[in-house]
Amino acid sequence: MEFGRNNTPFDKAEFEARLARTKARMAAAELDALIVCDPANMNYLTGYDGWSFYVHQAVLVALDLDRPVWFGRGQDVNGARLTTILPDADITGYSDDHVQSTTKHPMQALARLIEARGLSAKRIGVEADSYYFTAKSLDVLRQELPNARFEDAGVLVNWVRAVKSEAEIALMTQAARITEKTMRKAIDMIGVGVRQCDLAAEIQATATRGTTEYGGDYPAIVPLMPTGVGTSCPHITWLDEPFAAQAGTSIEIAGVRRRYHVPMTRTVYLGTPPEKMRNAADVVVEGIAAALAVARPGALARDVHAAWTRAIERHGLRKDSRCGYAVGLNYPPDWGERTISLRSTDETVLEPDMTLHFMPGIWLDDWGISISEAIRITPTGVATFCDFPRQLFVKAC
Amino acid sequence: MEFGRNNTPFDKAEFEARLARTKARMAAAELDALIVCDPANMNYLTGYDGWSFYVHQAVLVALDLDRPVWFGRGQDVNGARLTTILPDADITGYSDDHVQSTTKHPMQALARLIEARGLSAKRIGVEADSYYFTAKSLDVLRQELPNARFEDAGVLVNWVRAVKSEAEIALMTQAARITEKTMRKAIDMIGVGVRQCDLAAEIQATATRGTTEYGGDYPAIVPLMPTGVGTSCPHITWLDEPFAAQAGTSIEIAGVRRRYHVPMTRTVYLGTPPEKMRNAADVVVEGIAAALAVARPGALARDVHAAWTRAIERHGLRKDSRCGYAVGLNYPPDWGERTISLRSTDETVLEPDMTLHFMPGIWLDDWGISISEAIRITPTGVATFCDFPRQLFVKAC
Repeated sequence: MEFGRNNTPFDKAEFEARLARTKARMAAAELDALIVCDPANMNYLTGYDGWSFYVHQAVLVALDLDRPVWFGRGQDVNGARLTTILPDADITGYSDDHVQSTTKHPMQALARLIEARGLSAKRIGVEADSYYFTAKSLDVLRQELPNARFEDAGVLVNWVRAVKSEAEIALMTQAARITEKTMRKAIDMIGVGVRQCDLAAEIQATATRGTTEYGGDYPAIVPLMPTGVGTSCPHITWLDEPFAAQAGTSIEIAGVRRRYHVPMTRTVYLGTPPEKMRNAADVVVEGIAAALAVARPGALARDVHAAWTRAIERHGLRKDSRCGYAVGLNYPPDWGERTISLRSTDETVLEPDMTLHFMPGIWLDDWGISISEAIRITPTGVATFCDFPRQLFVKAC
Repeated sequence: MEFGRNNTPFDKAEFEARLARTKARMAAAELDALIVCDPANMNYLTGYDGWSFYVHQAVLVALDLDRPVWFGRGQDVNGARLTTILPDADITGYSDDHVQSTTKHPMQALARLIEARGLSAKRIGVEADSYYFTAKSLDVLRQELPNARFEDAGVLVNWVRAVKSEAEIALMTQAARITEKTMRKAIDMIGVGVRQCDLAAEIQATATRGTTEYGGDYPAIVPLMPTGVGTSCPHITWLDEPFAAQAGTSIEIAGVRRRYHVPMTRTVYLGTPPEKMRNAADVVVEGIAAALAVARPGALARDVHAAWTRAIERHGLRKDSRCGYAVGLNYPPDWGERTISLRSTDETVLEPDMTLHFMPGIWLDDWGISISEAIRITPTGVATFCDFPRQLFVKAC
């Protein structure tokens, strides 16, 4: 196997290992080929990095092909030449009249590529529930390749990504420094009368600048800062209203390095927090400690959730939703990897160098609190990526 | 029809008109119901605004229902109560064990909602090629509702969005001030030795801060700044390398106000630009003038493209891709509306208050130049949203 030039932070051996692990999973799933449309998976297998995922594109992997093939819009071919490890022969573009057209669809062009590579009568996996692989994509492929058998490969490549390499951990460790710096800045800046948009601006700038040694990358989710009654709504974004006194704000951000994320959430209260919120914060901190105490190789994802749940239920609190998920390489709209979820039904066995965002928020009817930690399973237990006070922050006003 | 509380910038009458126009298109397409998963369309019809589109969610519209129904993750119900115009009865959440699960799928819960509203044997439109409506979503719906007939509604609601209201134009006019401010800042700051990430940070912060009167919102595409050989790759994002002397950089940004985008691109050269680039800039500027001279109500989208193409072909230049697209309300991954494309095959008749990003870039093998304008079709012709020099910017170094 021979790769072309590229500017990715990983060496050739790492890409070869990723491809080999992907092919092993494909073989186990009895797939001859796999159409990869998730931008994070495309990056993982080829190095491709560009904001071109708003048009159809894919990486084609086949057991019989030495290398993945990049497939995308013609005007993004140069971007693929610049950022991927692939030789030009394995970078193919479709013409622009396929883009958002009512008469042509990019998956018709992908079907031609699949034919040209001798795969038109094979068992072909698709990422059926991934963003960017639309219902129409599958319909067009089925129509164009009547002899192929399409199977839902689920999040096959995402699972290959679950255990991080040394180089990936190194990037996340760099990202963690950006995370700490950004959260510190946010907590320093928030105050009564500060406009939400001005805090968001400072968060974005701090995270993108990164450090003097290395820069930050864009997060797959914008800074979230639900405030006041909004803290019961974890996913609303900023407005230009000023922060008010006697209200809490949950700040959720991520430092990002070369697409690798280390998220963090902290809640800040401006004024004197009500007793119930102080108590909830104590419970959350206790619950985090309880959960991290059981997170280690061999434990199940659900064990971590159970430890958290037991700890908060002792205090009469509940949280129905999952309390964490796998995290790492990603693109919008999500920094979560869509594999491991820390919840009662997830029986994933934790392994060293799995990385998760442990996100034990409690959202009640009209207020909420979250304190999260990005964690790495170590050979003997767990480590947090960040070193940051685990508490409700209170600023007098 | 009665709506609940909401914090959207639009009044009740505007939402009623949007719904009426959507229903008229549905009736024309012989659809009884429509499942809307595009976050911009969801916002347009209900006001819903939150970064929750990384899990399945939808707005259900039916000819026989007075109001749209919001459907999403349980923990986002409060966000819907806060941001939409809907009463609680029309906001429905699914339980968290549906999220990224291998055993349950949110579309099963949507099927139950469709049954509960008496629509399970109807003709139901889906946005088959929209981001966020996956192949699996359709498969699950077909399985759960065997008596329904699912039809590809294409970009039906996107087309309803094509002609902007006065209130929407007002937001885009505000966004344009942010666009100008941000581009000015970017051109002032870029220089030899400045790290790409530091420029990106300043762009993000300036755009998010907005003005002293109103704040900015996040763009559906991050700032793009391909530089040097990268200018031949329109969609690569920033690294932490410094900008080099004797190289061009194409800066593409958008000012955003309450999700309404006004994009702009300018190319900056650090040093003394080669003759061919200066000439190309002159040609592009000439081509823009030629194109805008024909953009008016009654003209076709392809007429604008033809005027641009004729102008640059006179100088021996070509651009195969479309030179513009509809723009306005949006969420990642795209600020384009996926309806009108300025290209040779698009026969859309331009109407007053259609808004477009006229984006006539020229990308050659190892360099490129782009100068773009966000435009509005006026009753008699065309107007640009921004007032910004239309030229290649050159900074000595």
